[in-house]
Amino acid sequence: MPDSSLLEAFETPTDTPFVIEHVAEEFTSLCPKTGHPDFGTVTIRFQPRPASAGGTCVELKSLKLYLQSFRDEGAFYEKVTNLIRDDLAELMNPAWLRVRTDWKGRGGIRSTITADYGPSHDPPER
Amino acid sequence: MPDSSLLEAFETPTDTPFVIEHVAEEFTSLCPKTGHPDFGTVTIRFQPRPASAGGTCVELKSLKLYLQSFRDEGAFYEKVTNLIRDDLAELMNPAWLRVRTDWKGRGGIRSTITADYGPSHDPPER
Amino acid sequence: MPDSSLLEAFETPTDTPFVIEHVAEEFTSLCPKTGHPDFGTVTIRFQPRPASAGGTCVELKSLKLYLQSFRDEGAFYEKVTNLIRDDLAELMNPAWLRVRTDWKGRGGIRSTITADYGPSHDPPER
Amino acid sequence: MPDSSLLEAFETPTDTPFVIEHVAEEFTSLCPKTGHPDFGTVTIRFQPRPASAGGTCVELKSLKLYLQSFRDEGAFYEKVTNLIRDDLAELMNPAWLRVRTDWKGRGGIRSTITADYGPSHDPPER
Amino acid sequence: MPDSSLLEAFETPTDTPFVIEHVAEEFTSLCPKTGHPDFGTVTIRFQPRPASAGGTCVELKSLKLYLQSFRDEGAFYEKVTNLIRDDLAELMNPAWLRVRTDWKGRGGIRSTITADYGPSHDPPER
Amino acid sequence: MPDSSLLEAFETPTDTPFVIEHVAEEFTSLCPKTGHPDFGTVTIRFQPRPASAGGTCVELKSLKLYLQSFRDEGAFYEKVTNLIRDDLAELMNPAWLRVRTDWKGRGGIRSTITADYGPSHDPPER
Amino acid sequence: MPDSSLLEAFETPTDTPFVIEHVAEEFTSLCPKTGHPDFGTVTIRFQPRPASAGGTCVELKSLKLYLQSFRDEGAFYEKVTNLIRDDLAELMNPAWLRVRTDWKGRGGIRSTITADYGPSHDPPER
Amino acid sequence: MPDSSLLEAFETPTDTPFVIEHVAEEFTSLCPKTGHPDFGTVTIRFQPRPASAGGTCVELKSLKLYLQSFRDEGAFYEKVTNLIRDDLAELMNPAWLRVRTDWKGRGGIRSTITADYGPSHDPPER
Amino acid sequence: MPDSSLLEAFETPTDTPFVIEHVAEEFTSLCPKTGHPDFGTVTIRFQPRPASAGGTCVELKSLKLYLQSFRDEGAFYEKVTNLIRDDLAELMNPAWLRVRTDWKGRGGIRSTITADYGPSHDPPER
Amino acid sequence: MPDSSLLEAFETPTDTPFVIEHVAEEFTSLCPKTGHPDFGTVTIRFQPRPASAGGTCVELKSLKLYLQSFRDEGAFYEKVTNLIRDDLAELMNPAWLRVRTDWKGRGGIRSTITADYGPSHDPPER
Repeated sequence: MPDSSLLEAFETPTDTPFVIEHVAEEFTSLCPKTGHPDFGTVTIRFQPRPASAGGTCVELKSLKLYLQSFRDEGAFYEKVTNLIRDDLAELMNPAWLRVRTDWKGRGGIRSTITADYGPSHDPPER
Repeated sequence: MPDSSLLEAFETPTDTPFVIEHVAEEFTSLCPKTGHPDFGTVTIRFQPRPASAGGTCVELKSLKLYLQSFRDEGAFYEKVTNLIRDDLAELMNPAWLRVRTDWKGRGGIRSTITADYGPSHDPPER
Repeated sequence: MPDSSLLEAFETPTDTPFVIEHVAEEFTSLCPKTGHPDFGTVTIRFQPRPASAGGTCVELKSLKLYLQSFRDEGAFYEKVTNLIRDDLAELMNPAWLRVRTDWKGRGGIRSTITADYGPSHDPPER
Repeated sequence: MPDSSLLEAFETPTDTPFVIEHVAEEFTSLCPKTGHPDFGTVTIRFQPRPASAGGTCVELKSLKLYLQSFRDEGAFYEKVTNLIRDDLAELMNPAWLRVRTDWKGRGGIRSTITADYGPSHDPPER
Repeated sequence: MPDSSLLEAFETPTDTPFVIEHVAEEFTSLCPKTGHPDFGTVTIRFQPRPASAGGTCVELKSLKLYLQSFRDEGAFYEKVTNLIRDDLAELMNPAWLRVRTDWKGRGGIRSTITADYGPSHDPPER
Repeated sequence: MPDSSLLEAFETPTDTPFVIEHVAEEFTSLCPKTGHPDFGTVTIRFQPRPASAGGTCVELKSLKLYLQSFRDEGAFYEKVTNLIRDDLAELMNPAWLRVRTDWKGRGGIRSTITADYGPSHDPPER
Repeated sequence: MPDSSLLEAFETPTDTPFVIEHVAEEFTSLCPKTGHPDFGTVTIRFQPRPASAGGTCVELKSLKLYLQSFRDEGAFYEKVTNLIRDDLAELMNPAWLRVRTDWKGRGGIRSTITADYGPSHDPPER
Repeated sequence: MPDSSLLEAFETPTDTPFVIEHVAEEFTSLCPKTGHPDFGTVTIRFQPRPASAGGTCVELKSLKLYLQSFRDEGAFYEKVTNLIRDDLAELMNPAWLRVRTDWKGRGGIRSTITADYGPSHDPPER
Repeated sequence: MPDSSLLEAFETPTDTPFVIEHVAEEFTSLCPKTGHPDFGTVTIRFQPRPASAGGTCVELKSLKLYLQSFRDEGAFYEKVTNLIRDDLAELMNPAWLRVRTDWKGRGGIRSTITADYGPSHDPPER
Repeated sequence: MPDSSLLEAFETPTDTPFVIEHVAEEFTSLCPKTGHPDFGTVTIRFQPRPASAGGTCVELKSLKLYLQSFRDEGAFYEKVTNLIRDDLAELMNPAWLRVRTDWKGRGGIRSTITADYGPSHDPPER
């Protein structure tokens, strides 16, 4: 079951704005309808707040364990994506955050979901 | 024959704006002139309205059956694209929607059609 | 000899703006200096005017025959590109039109020419 | 030795703005420090002035000979790029011009230099 | 240990603004937690100040030696990236500078860090 | 329904042995269990008998119509492949013939079937 | 837990030798040492015995369920590969069978295991 | 019209056996049925006889002119391929020669023809 | 310094012959001439002896640590490759073993070294 | 002018047979007819004789200087390839040696030349 208590953060090392992206290509959860496994890639991209404003970054190993906690979870693509966005936003309170999930095909259709947090200076293109 | 009654939607899970893309690589219809089959890829990209505003998302299996209903339909590329756009816009009334079809070559020419619904903050590039 | 009388158009099926792209990878003409054949790809991208404004789309087979009519024509890359742009603009009077030609290398240099018609909301990037 | 007198131009065929790109993948000069050969690709992209304003385009064969004249020249990446930009700007006085050089790796580092001429409506991205 | 005294600069050859990118694909440092080696690519992109304003460019061989000085350094991705940005900004005082590091996967997650210096006319996209 | 009477052959033009391959990327049939469409690529490779021995080659347009006749046929991958092999072997009586079908994924598994006719001097590798 | 009772076979449709390959890109099991998930691709390639000799082929959906039954299994790469080979050989008694597993990287090392059944006319290359 | 008198050969420079391959990606002829142009790639691979045995190699520019002479020729794929093989075999009398033509798709089917001359130590694979 | 005492092996799980390949893309050592770091990929491929004959397989984590022990070693490509082959052959006494190293370019030349152990049923191709 | 006296060799480190490949992607010479530069890639692959039989390997930096000595040489593809083969064979007297040159296109035709030394256990395929 997704467990946000697994997530840990560390202080960002600078006041200068910078951007971090983590790409986890080995994500799996379960389809809530059929029980069959879904496989996908989770891309997390964010700008931490400045160090002087208490900005933090998610710690890499804790992120891995958190994403592994979806392994036995039955949830739709849309819910998984929004939940990861919410958990990471709560953990880090970043300047902005984008979570994108790319799912392998089901029935000949493959899907991508993109969820944002914070003021949108660069919205997902059409 | 294209059958929009096959389409089903479910309530969007959040008020936060997010974007969904479905790519169906196994689309086929018939050329209305020659009767020969056309093959293409249909890409559907949209932002649902917020949950509190009654926003909905197209259900994946119903989308698959709807797209399969074009198998015996004779229609030009342009009409197919505009029809899918209209049917999905009516189903979901999304914040915006883009439908793109990429057709395999005929006579050495391959074609792409892009149709939009809703205010265009990101028009197709030239 | 390029023959614009081969081009035919049909009424656009909708008032909603949409965009059409045709990519012809099998284009050949002759170098006016050496008489040797040139080979390239012609990409045509346009937005038809609304149906209620008399908007039209170029018919695919007539486009193929028109492009084949350059087979024995000796003309520089730049002239070929501008001529196709002019002929299609006259045929369809579109909202906008872009013609791009990508030519295979000559003497170790390969070239791309891009010509526009109509108000430029998305100029070729530098 | 680079010889700009090799460059020739011809009258642009139209008043309508259009864009030309030439990519020369077979460029070589010498490193001024070590004397070892450098290899790279030179990309030249420009918009000629309108025909009625005396706009011209560089002739392709003369461009090839001009680029070959760097074969025995010892010059740093930065100087080569700025020199080509200056010579072509003087030849054509274009609406705008961009010269980009992509150099094969030296010591595990490969480099790209981009130099502009004219008002910058599309600056090199960061 | 990272040693910024290895870095050397030379005078930029022109007053015209231009952009330089160096890509070093053979970067390695150590993970401060586990001591295991990290491998990545470092991309440095900047616009030197005009020659008349004392603008300089980092010399390529000195950059190579500087990057090699991280070989025995234990530091997190974020710190490495910010340090390279700071050292190069101090060396060249450029119009702007971007440093991006792309790290090979650890535990199924690969990461990219992007740090900027100077007024941001082209911020990292979301 | 697959209709081998659509197939036509023409006399091979030479006594010298040669090899012909046709790749049809736009093949579709139906799954006999679910009725859902299957999509795949059919590769046909053969050596005609010598002209003096009555050797023939399948005519390209007739092959296209024959493959289209599977559009409403419900049949397993294995049966489709063996049937095409048998129909073409009967039509041409070639020196040898190989039919390979590559099917798009179903339930996360994609399949390839290879069927041979004639003495096997080059069996499918393991 | 791997469950070979999930596997089902159907009669091969022909006496003519042919070859079948199934590629399952969405395989996951657990590392028996760390408990962390492993991800890989399983490729199964075999030649069924002739129909008249009681030859059978593994049914696709049963194969999918069988491979999913490894989801909670802790086993080394080598054991997983040999087990799949043994279970399928027992099910089908094929003329020959090859099972290959391609595993995503761990600690910067990615692995491939290949196991054969039956007389080896085409051994894995060095 | 194909004109083998355009072909010229030069003496091979050595007695040691070696192999030459020429790939012409810009080949075009006409379909004898429809008159529409066909486009393809011609690959010529051969081993000249030893110099002391009068071995020769086809001269590159003459080969280019010879291939251009098919531009207005209406001929099937199979005939074009066999004719090029025969003309080159007669010109050079090589130890062996292979001609392969790869044709762009027609009606969703693309074709490859392979014709050999001389003792076949390496026949086209199935 | 390369330390073969870091290597550990485990008993092979079966008597049936099978093949294992490990690809380590993050290898680095030092050039013995210049002291500059070399980067490469190490591919290890072997067939263990049967379990009943005492066959063993190299343990993955120990292999990683062993390869890391080359980090401060100055050695030519050829010596590194032969040393890894010898150390692994002594550890496992396999039926056969192949070690291939692919090195990133130096001075515009990139190199590959292939070393074998055991009877060569599949020698490196020319 | 090609200068084989630039080549140096070092003693092979082992009696065990192994294979070395060097790929030089930055080769240039001159066309003896037109004087225009030719660009290509030179691939050298060989098996040194055993150390106890006086086997040697070409030294990498000397190979680089030797290949650079063709920069002002006017020679046909075939002669360049045979000359490199002869010079390296004389230097090392290897068990076997293959030299392959891949030349960028001229007049729409690109060429590959392959020359062997020593008993041919793996001749170039047709």
